[in-house]
Amino acid sequence: MNATPPYYAVIFTSKRSAAGQEEYAAMSEAMEELARQQPGFLGMEHAREGIGITVSYWDSLENIARWKSQADHQIAQQLGRRSWYESYRVRICRVEREYGFPQEHP
Amino acid sequence: MNATPPYYAVIFTSKRSAAGQEEYAAMSEAMEELARQQPGFLGMEHAREGIGITVSYWDSLENIARWKSQADHQIAQQLGRRSWYESYRVRICRVEREYGFPQEHP
Repeated sequence: MNATPPYYAVIFTSKRSAAGQEEYAAMSEAMEELARQQPGFLGMEHAREGIGITVSYWDSLENIARWKSQADHQIAQQLGRRSWYESYRVRICRVEREYGFPQEHP
Repeated sequence: MNATPPYYAVIFTSKRSAAGQEEYAAMSEAMEELARQQPGFLGMEHAREGIGITVSYWDSLENIARWKSQADHQIAQQLGRRSWYESYRVRICRVEREYGFPQEHP
C-alpha cells in the first residue's frame, strides 16, 4: 500500500455467525475482487482472530461511496450481511498521517 | 466501543519477526494495558492472521500523542519495535462516520 496522506480508510470489523460458511467464503472473495477493481482503490488488509478486521484504503470519499453502492447491490442479490454476521461495524476514516518501519514513504 | 464521530482511530498493522516470542507477548499485553489506562481511550480491537491489525480508538489527537510518547518511552526501555517486527505501519485517522448492525449508535 503506497499512498501519501490524506487518503481514506474503511475499517470493517465483524463477528461471524455460524451459518453459511461456504457461501461466506465465496462472498468474501467476490467482495475483495470487486474492491480491487474499483477506481480509487489503494489497498486492503485483513485478519480474523475471533473478530475479523478488514481495512481498505481509498483515494476519496466519492470512490468509497461508489464501491459501497456496488457492494450493497451485490450483497442484496445474495443472503445479505445479516445472515453472515452476528454483528458488524463500518467506519469511514480520513488518514491524517502515517509512519512505520521500514520507512517506505518519506 | 461506544462513541459518536468524529473521533480518532490508530490503525497499527504489522508483520512479526520470528525473534522474541515470549518477550513480545509480555510487551503486547503491557502495551494494551497502558492504552486502556490513558485519558481519551475509547476502545481497541485486534486480530492476527498472517499480518496483525490493531485498531485503537481515541477522543482526540492530543490524547493519541500523549499515549504515543508514553508507549515509545516504555518500548525504548525494552528491545524496541524493530526486533519484534519485520515491518509495521501506523496510521492516524479521523473517523468521519460509522454504521453497522445491530445499530448500536443511532
